[in-house]
Amino acid sequence: MSEERMQADLHVLRDIVRQFVEERDWDQFHTPRNLACALSVEAAELLEPFQWLEKGTAQELDEATRTQVRHEMADVLTYLIRLADKLDVDLYQAVLEKMKLNRQKYPAEQVRGDARKYTAYRTASGKPE
Amino acid sequence: MSEERMQADLHVLRDIVRQFVEERDWDQFHTPRNLACALSVEAAELLEPFQWLEKGTAQELDEATRTQVRHEMADVLTYLIRLADKLDVDLYQAVLEKMKLNRQKYPAEQVRGDARKYTAYRTASGKPE
Amino acid sequence: MSEERMQADLHVLRDIVRQFVEERDWDQFHTPRNLACALSVEAAELLEPFQWLEKGTAQELDEATRTQVRHEMADVLTYLIRLADKLDVDLYQAVLEKMKLNRQKYPAEQVRGDARKYTAYRTASGKPE
Amino acid sequence: MSEERMQADLHVLRDIVRQFVEERDWDQFHTPRNLACALSVEAAELLEPFQWLEKGTAQELDEATRTQVRHEMADVLTYLIRLADKLDVDLYQAVLEKMKLNRQKYPAEQVRGDARKYTAYRTASGKPE
Repeated sequence: MSEERMQADLHVLRDIVRQFVEERDWDQFHTPRNLACALSVEAAELLEPFQWLEKGTAQELDEATRTQVRHEMADVLTYLIRLADKLDVDLYQAVLEKMKLNRQKYPAEQVRGDARKYTAYRTASGKPE
Repeated sequence: MSEERMQADLHVLRDIVRQFVEERDWDQFHTPRNLACALSVEAAELLEPFQWLEKGTAQELDEATRTQVRHEMADVLTYLIRLADKLDVDLYQAVLEKMKLNRQKYPAEQVRGDARKYTAYRTASGKPE
Repeated sequence: MSEERMQADLHVLRDIVRQFVEERDWDQFHTPRNLACALSVEAAELLEPFQWLEKGTAQELDEATRTQVRHEMADVLTYLIRLADKLDVDLYQAVLEKMKLNRQKYPAEQVRGDARKYTAYRTASGKPE
Repeated sequence: MSEERMQADLHVLRDIVRQFVEERDWDQFHTPRNLACALSVEAAELLEPFQWLEKGTAQELDEATRTQVRHEMADVLTYLIRLADKLDVDLYQAVLEKMKLNRQKYPAEQVRGDARKYTAYRTASGKPE
C-alpha cells in the first residue's frame, strides 16, 4: 500500500485532534467516560434541529441551521476519533468488522424493503442496526 | 493528489454503508431525522458501559465489554457517515473547518490545563467544545 | 392542605427510590454526573423503539413494545427523581417555575399553530422548549 | 381515595402542560417520536454541565449552572409527562410496577455495595437499572 494510504483521513484527523488537545493540556479531562458523555451530548445537539420538523428532511432546514448541523457532525466525529485514540480502537477496521456482523444479522433477502417487516425484525432482535 | 487519496477511509466506508443500505432497500427509512435519532441512540449505547465506573477508564472494562464498546463506536460512525451522505456533507472537510473555529474559540494560551478555568470558560461560553 | 397532599406522588416515589438504593448500598455510585449519564442512556432507550417508525405514532408499536416503552419511561422518571433528591431540587416547583419562563418565551399569540413559524421561532431562539 | 389524591403532583403538572400546548396549538407536533426526541435532547442538555467535572458532584457547579440544571430537569419532566399523556401511561403506576421488577432483578443481598460486583452484575445482565 502506498504512503498516501497511510495518510488516511481518520489518521490525519486523529493527529489534528491530538495536537489540539496537547496544546491545551486537556488530555487530563479526557477519560473514556467523559469523552463518551461529550459524544452523547454532541449527538443530541445534532438531533435538536430535526426534532420538530414535519418530515425530518434537510429541505426543511434553513441555511444557517444546515451549517450548524455540519458543525455538530464535526463535533461528533471529533469526540469519536478522540475516544478511539484513547481506547486504541482503529475506527476504520471497527466499521469493517461491524458491517460484517450486520450482514449476518440482517440478511438482505429477509429484511428487504418492507417497513413493517423491518421494524418487526429489529424489534424482535431487540437491537438497532 | 494521487488516486489513493481519493480512496480515503471515509469515502470507502461511505460506499460500503451505501451498498449495505441499497441491498436491503432501507434508504426509504433514512430521513435525516431518523438517522440523527439512530446516531443519538447508538451514542447512548456507547456511554452505557461507562456510566457506573469509578474513574471512567478503559481498565475498568472487561474484555467482552471492550468489544461491545468497539462495536458501538462502529455503529456511531456508520450512522454519522450515512447522515453525511444524505446531507452531502464531507466529514473530513467539516472537521477541518470546525477545528479552525475551535482554535479561535479556545485559544491555547487562555485555556491551558487548569480544570477550573477550563470548566468556567466553557460554562461561560455556554457551549461544549 | 390535607395530609394526602403531603403524600404527593413525586415525594412518595422519591422515598421508594431512596429505600431501594439504601437497601443495595448504591448511593456511593450516585454522583450527579453518573445519574445524569444514566438518565441520558434511559432517554435514548425510550427513543429507540420510535426511531424507524413511519409516522412516529403509538399505533405503530406492538403490545410488547408498548410495555417496554412504559418501563423505559419509568426508568427515566426514576433517575430524574434520584438526581433531584441528590441536588435538593423540588421537581414540582421546578416545573412550575420553568413553565412560567416558557410562557414568556413563547407567547401564545406569536407562536400559535404554524409549523414553519414554530420551527423558525425555535431555531432563531436557538433553544428547544 | 380522597379528592386530594386525585390532585396529585403528576396530574396537576400534566394539566398545566396540556393547557400550555393547547394555547399554542402545538399538539400537532407532539407525535410520540418527536416527544421522545425532545426528551432525549433535554436529557443531554442536563448532562452537559457535568461532563468535564473532576468528580461529577454538585459542589463543582456555580450558582448559575445549578439554576440551569434545575431548569433542564424541569424540561425533562415536562416532556416525559407530555409523552405519558399522549401514550395514556400513568407515570406513578409505571414507576411502582418497574421498581417491583427492579427488586426481583437486583436482589439486595446479591448486589449490595461492591462496585465491581455492581458493574459486573449489570454488564452481565446487559441492561442498566
